[in-house]
Amino acid sequence: MRRHPALLLVAAAIALLSCTASAAASLALKVDGQAVVAQLMQLAQWSDDPAPAVTRLIYTDNDMKARAYVQQLMREAGLQVREDTMGNIYGRLAGTDPEGAAVATGSHTDAIPGAGAYDGTVGVIGGIAALRALGEAGFKPARPIEVVMFTSEEPTRFGLSCSGSRAMAGLLDSACLDTLRDVNGSTYLQAASAAGYGAASTAQMVAGARRTPADLAAFLELHIEQGPELEKEGLQIGIVTAIAAPAALRVRFSGDGGHAGAQLMPLRNDASLAAAELALLVEKTALGTGVVDTVATVGSWHIQPNAVNSVPREAALEIDVRDIDGPRRDGVLAAIKAEAAAIAARRKVRLAVETINQDPPAACGAQVVAAVEAAVREVGASSKRMVSRAYHDSLFMAQIAPTGMVFIPCRNGWSHRPDEFAAPDDIQRGIEVLALALAQLAGDGSRGSGGGGGGSGSGARTEL
Amino acid sequence: MRRHPALLLVAAAIALLSCTASAAASLALKVDGQAVVAQLMQLAQWSDDPAPAVTRLIYTDNDMKARAYVQQLMREAGLQVREDTMGNIYGRLAGTDPEGAAVATGSHTDAIPGAGAYDGTVGVIGGIAALRALGEAGFKPARPIEVVMFTSEEPTRFGLSCSGSRAMAGLLDSACLDTLRDVNGSTYLQAASAAGYGAASTAQMVAGARRTPADLAAFLELHIEQGPELEKEGLQIGIVTAIAAPAALRVRFSGDGGHAGAQLMPLRNDASLAAAELALLVEKTALGTGVVDTVATVGSWHIQPNAVNSVPREAALEIDVRDIDGPRRDGVLAAIKAEAAAIAARRKVRLAVETINQDPPAACGAQVVAAVEAAVREVGASSKRMVSRAYHDSLFMAQIAPTGMVFIPCRNGWSHRPDEFAAPDDIQRGIEVLALALAQLAGDGSRGSGGGGGGSGSGARTEL
Repeated sequence: MRRHPALLLVAAAIALLSCTASAAASLALKVDGQAVVAQLMQLAQWSDDPAPAVTRLIYTDNDMKARAYVQQLMREAGLQVREDTMGNIYGRLAGTDPEGAAVATGSHTDAIPGAGAYDGTVGVIGGIAALRALGEAGFKPARPIEVVMFTSEEPTRFGLSCSGSRAMAGLLDSACLDTLRDVNGSTYLQAASAAGYGAASTAQMVAGARRTPADLAAFLELHIEQGPELEKEGLQIGIVTAIAAPAALRVRFSGDGGHAGAQLMPLRNDASLAAAELALLVEKTALGTGVVDTVATVGSWHIQPNAVNSVPREAALEIDVRDIDGPRRDGVLAAIKAEAAAIAARRKVRLAVETINQDPPAACGAQVVAAVEAAVREVGASSKRMVSRAYHDSLFMAQIAPTGMVFIPCRNGWSHRPDEFAAPDDIQRGIEVLALALAQLAGDGSRGSGGGGGGSGSGARTEL
Repeated sequence: MRRHPALLLVAAAIALLSCTASAAASLALKVDGQAVVAQLMQLAQWSDDPAPAVTRLIYTDNDMKARAYVQQLMREAGLQVREDTMGNIYGRLAGTDPEGAAVATGSHTDAIPGAGAYDGTVGVIGGIAALRALGEAGFKPARPIEVVMFTSEEPTRFGLSCSGSRAMAGLLDSACLDTLRDVNGSTYLQAASAAGYGAASTAQMVAGARRTPADLAAFLELHIEQGPELEKEGLQIGIVTAIAAPAALRVRFSGDGGHAGAQLMPLRNDASLAAAELALLVEKTALGTGVVDTVATVGSWHIQPNAVNSVPREAALEIDVRDIDGPRRDGVLAAIKAEAAAIAARRKVRLAVETINQDPPAACGAQVVAAVEAAVREVGASSKRMVSRAYHDSLFMAQIAPTGMVFIPCRNGWSHRPDEFAAPDDIQRGIEVLALALAQLAGDGSRGSGGGGGGSGSGARTEL
């Protein structure tokens, strides 16, 4: 079997890493975990729901307050701040190589209704803390290092996840984006423009956020696990090697409604009962693969007119299906669509099915994984390689740069709920691992090297 | 078997009716059906949803505009207008007997989300038109005749149906009413006070609307059928003899939620799937009685956090169950509660069940039914006796006065939807029947009689 040329480059990059590991090891990093927790708690106060719940939809007043705070923290960390047309916010630690492609980290600060204080925010606040610690330790990176607050990883307001990172990766179709509306009927461009972002057109707004492999050498995201594995196994760090493939369907059943007292049972075509049957089928189909990696959820239900004395006329469901195996995930999607049609025929309701997204899974970059493993050894943390079942902005960054993720444990595996929690020690340890790995990937500029463990720009770009 | 004394009084009242029927027959009534339809269309314009949908929740801006219009029409019809502390609006045609208990008609103008222009409104606008026609025909009633716009027959804003007529009948518990909240957290008293109604306390507000058998001789409501029977059988008028017994449950399942990607299927306790199972069971149980008179509906669904990427943590259902047979209806309620508990145990979710209301069925007053039958003969309409499967304010008025209802056909039996429709000819005929029946029940004051078909006040009150 012939070896693919790219694999040789990966091997070379890993070999290079083992030489530069000692550079990061010499850093006297000081990360103040308590200060980071205080900043996370401050951020959580900007919420549309009462504490401890955090609800923060993009471009709302609370989102704008959170954005101002993120920029303030970036400036206090000595970073150069800039924003793009989508509202992605960058803080940059300059590199000694003015031509070097950047090494980036970051995550999101938006929060679904009734969520908690750690999902996404640990990667933004922690990313800033990592760059601050590197700067304060006197580290001069060869490549610039950036921390990014991505716009709208969560799909709440417009139904589309990861709009900021999709735009960066060139994977956001502006014509499609233009068809989306929030509950007030606003377009994305209108909402972005009202928040002070946007451009003359949606296409210009999307293009304004574009990054390319030429200016991005690697991406590494710090995140809470959002699952129970690390806590159960007593491990401190998860080294992510792949990100599960998410997909979402929107299914709408429409019947004729009627009065709950007067419309006799045999004459009804109740849309909510079609939805109830499909929801149970979604669960059965996910369980039916026999593999724990398949998950499927009916998370969003909209029933109309939603009045106790009225037979439901409309039932709109949003269905989330994920798997680390793309074809198996697609098989579940196909089964759900087929059963929705069968239910609609049997219950004499009308059916509309729309695929909101159907993204491929992502494999992490080998040299990024290697940099994380070296950093884990350096701090003496216990760890394991694992898969991210949740999607992240990393899923899309992986399309334009070698990408990795650092997971820290979260209590009971809970997230997207008010009692989401990660321990201060785990947060601090995660930031230390992140900082050391970023330093390795960026290279030590004081040594006169043009780049670190990420290898040359072209090497990074051809990583599988 | 000994005959109950009240039955003798009923027999006497019916005998009296046959003597007074000719009084109404001599009336030269002129009802302008087209004008009534124009008034209904005007009323439909005050809606929180775009036409043809009508959404009008009590005490909102659009409800207040509708109320002002109703009062204007009452004044134009020559009626004395008054409002009570609950916001029930009365228009009164004075009787020649100043001590006489009133004969009343009326219905509601509030509308559930996405409803139509005829449910309830035909009985208010049509009731005003009936009194106007009686006045313009020179009819002087012995008893006063009132038309009432009842506050909030629909349960939308506070979850409680018929608050206005329940208060009139002394069947509204003010302590219970105080526990209710609308979506903004307002109490009923706060909302009523903001609209210019209310009192110093909820108890005073409720007491301020009280009517007693001593001041109410009979009640008769004109309404669209909200079912398909009259249209299917080609009949013009339905003479209601009983009103089905409504009940409503609120069922809340609570699980632990979690991330739709990271929370593995075997670890979930998804509240929405418990709700889905229960909804299908509700349908199965209603069908299982084998009687078409049993209907059960899950009309209201509230899922939290209701985000596509979050496992549902809360699912709150409102379940409506009705039957013309009270014990059979209660059997269905018991089966639903038992199955909810079994589902909760099986799916490891927490359960709370609350009975919102469980009202008895109502039998119509024999002399009111007789007055309607006489009026139907008078106008030469085709008709049949029938049961009201929908509940109405009449259900509660029946607790304090002999009560009846006049049904007119509606297209396809549809109601609670934007394309609800009743033909102008049917509306006009219904108003004519209503006016003639009210005249008979009130008695012809120009003849010096103290009352008409309703018999003496005490006779009316002891009606079975």
